[in-house]
Amino acid sequence: MPEFLKLLPADEAWEIFTQHFTPVVVPELCRVADALDRVLARDATAPHELPTFVRGTVDGYAVQAADTHGATPGMPAYLDVVAEAAMGQQTDFILGPGQAALAHTGGMVPQGADAVVMIEHTNRAGPPMFAVTKDEGRKTKTSPAAFEAYSIEVMRAVAAGDNCIQPGEDVTAGELILSAGHTLRPQDLGGLLAVGITEVQTARQPRVGIVSQGDEVVPPEQEPGPGQVRDVNSYTLAGYVRRAGGIPLTYPIAPDTQEEIDAAVRAAFDEADVVVVTAGSSVSYRDLTAHAINALGRPGVLVHGVAIRPGKPTILAVCEGKPVFGLPGNPVSCINIFGRFVTPTLRLLLGAPPLKTQTVAAKLARNIPAASGRADYVRVRLEERDGETWAVPVFGKSNLIYTLIRSDGVVEVSLNSNGIAAETMVRVVLD
Amino acid sequence: MPEFLKLLPADEAWEIFTQHFTPVVVPELCRVADALDRVLARDATAPHELPTFVRGTVDGYAVQAADTHGATPGMPAYLDVVAEAAMGQQTDFILGPGQAALAHTGGMVPQGADAVVMIEHTNRAGPPMFAVTKDEGRKTKTSPAAFEAYSIEVMRAVAAGDNCIQPGEDVTAGELILSAGHTLRPQDLGGLLAVGITEVQTARQPRVGIVSQGDEVVPPEQEPGPGQVRDVNSYTLAGYVRRAGGIPLTYPIAPDTQEEIDAAVRAAFDEADVVVVTAGSSVSYRDLTAHAINALGRPGVLVHGVAIRPGKPTILAVCEGKPVFGLPGNPVSCINIFGRFVTPTLRLLLGAPPLKTQTVAAKLARNIPAASGRADYVRVRLEERDGETWAVPVFGKSNLIYTLIRSDGVVEVSLNSNGIAAETMVRVVLD
Repeated sequence: MPEFLKLLPADEAWEIFTQHFTPVVVPELCRVADALDRVLARDATAPHELPTFVRGTVDGYAVQAADTHGATPGMPAYLDVVAEAAMGQQTDFILGPGQAALAHTGGMVPQGADAVVMIEHTNRAGPPMFAVTKDEGRKTKTSPAAFEAYSIEVMRAVAAGDNCIQPGEDVTAGELILSAGHTLRPQDLGGLLAVGITEVQTARQPRVGIVSQGDEVVPPEQEPGPGQVRDVNSYTLAGYVRRAGGIPLTYPIAPDTQEEIDAAVRAAFDEADVVVVTAGSSVSYRDLTAHAINALGRPGVLVHGVAIRPGKPTILAVCEGKPVFGLPGNPVSCINIFGRFVTPTLRLLLGAPPLKTQTVAAKLARNIPAASGRADYVRVRLEERDGETWAVPVFGKSNLIYTLIRSDGVVEVSLNSNGIAAETMVRVVLD
Repeated sequence: MPEFLKLLPADEAWEIFTQHFTPVVVPELCRVADALDRVLARDATAPHELPTFVRGTVDGYAVQAADTHGATPGMPAYLDVVAEAAMGQQTDFILGPGQAALAHTGGMVPQGADAVVMIEHTNRAGPPMFAVTKDEGRKTKTSPAAFEAYSIEVMRAVAAGDNCIQPGEDVTAGELILSAGHTLRPQDLGGLLAVGITEVQTARQPRVGIVSQGDEVVPPEQEPGPGQVRDVNSYTLAGYVRRAGGIPLTYPIAPDTQEEIDAAVRAAFDEADVVVVTAGSSVSYRDLTAHAINALGRPGVLVHGVAIRPGKPTILAVCEGKPVFGLPGNPVSCINIFGRFVTPTLRLLLGAPPLKTQTVAAKLARNIPAASGRADYVRVRLEERDGETWAVPVFGKSNLIYTLIRSDGVVEVSLNSNGIAAETMVRVVLD
């Protein structure tokens, strides 16, 4: 009798696997400017506070708030504008009572001032507020020396601190700004650089060795002969490895002999942090893969067969601490299993939470029949009908690569479900 | 009087901008293996059908379906297994009535056969089904010459076509497989390669020249002096450019003089497909930016000021066909405006639909007050409380870069809204 698979529920299979796998996050120094989408390996704390000086948040006039007390359009406060607080410079004057200084958004609020009045709430009552040069009347900066004093009417009162950011209001010195395990977004790069952090310890990206196996498989650039097909899985999986934060390494296609599979799997194992072997996991050839994996070291194959459709003939293994996976050769099964087991493994090696998936709520367009004793992953196409989103199951044999292309995502029918009735709202995990 | 902004609603501003901007998608040949996340510039059609031969979808026996008619466990059909259909090869025999051939998942179904019986539905009634070699009893392939015939019991009937994929069932020759404008997912790479397409015309990625402006701004690696701050926007925007599918080009920080801004903006304009200038758009200095942009060519500045908060002092321009943007210098405003105007522009240049955003439905934790006459974008932090997701507004001055870091996404309060009451379900667009 051929050896049929003992199918384990996915959760149980994952638990057995993780009991034998101790992920180690390897830190790697990375320039912040290059660190988009990388995962932090260490907490980042602010080396100093931000801002480091009182900054104005509007264009207007730095004042002593008390001078504006009770000011209204009908009863304005009159102030003398004695200077301009130039951008990017320490102001060289101390504002006194009854005085104001022209101030720009983001500039340092001068000493003696404790608030900024918005320019919209003032009227000038003297010579032109901006010095006008001869070149087409464009405004230019006025040097403090050349500053010509004038007076303004302030039509609205401000309180101390109004339109100012205090030192440390953005971030305080020593504050935890981003935690280990966080995936860096564009604004995180800005935040790190704002406090002068130009390099960070990131998790080294796990290298994933991908071995495609099968006498019938030829490289994509080759014209397949009778009975042959082009390699689909190597490149599809390489894309998923990148999505999960890893680096794919592809290897030549291994023919279906024990010696050649052993050699291909060993080559990947020696170079990569994680090995993925596709095909060779169905009844006829899966023993070749299992044998090759067991030859890599202890404990070897832990799970052979999971109660997931598509994807039943799956191997989960750990050899000398490295995860090794045998994935079904059918493209649909292959990426389904990759998403359930390999992606989470890569996230563990990155010290990162599970990969965020995009999901859409949709109304199921057809019944999905019950599948007793296994979790079903049904690919669906999204359709908009009368302003509602519908999930239309794309039933297809799992060998059909175009099932993956014609669909937008997946609906899970859990292990103990009795199927899902049409018109039920379902959660579609998008690709 | 200073020149206050005439604020246009965002939709109106975008319409004016697009009336003057004719995006041209520039095709660029790209290896499919390198084309993850690239946008197709041309439709892709299948040069040939797939599969090109009848493939079995299970491990088992290729048979003539008629021979299994009425077969049950109690009344099996008896067949003679006369050959093995080796993987990746044309079979060199024609199956006759009463005969079966050992068949593997994905292999060519031999001539004469019209269905495959799953191995689970058979019992062997002769010598060992697999030839067993001496090396530890591992199964190996049997060469046709060495094949030793045996007989099987078939315990379940199959119909013609069962467990087979017919030629063209996956994709037909000439079929449209992926449309121009589609962003290539991992499985799309596999699908293209499956039909031998190893290179595709993709939209050339728009190069976005980023100019940071301001006397107070210093490069991140530099220790800021009094009144100075490190450049945050260049690197944050570079990340958003990458997310939108473009290539960022950064330039040295331009000081606030007309000559230097003119030169910096011109340098970016000459090299890039889109120019983004940050800061210099507030009352004091924005005329410098507007002047520099108008000097690039016709029609120049189209919109100066939008009814969006944060982000009011925004410039939308088209100069000699190239989009040019003046963004507020405050980081929060800057990325808000980038998302509303620059990202959609990059998508037009890619010929791609709007960037997919991840959204989460959440219950608002606090009232968001009304903002008459403008669209408000309020940053929120997501919190799980008793199994519900709550959106907690992170109110902060728009100068605070850490507002962006402490929050997870944005809630839009539309132009004509009266604010949003606490406990309302809102849609949070995640970063």
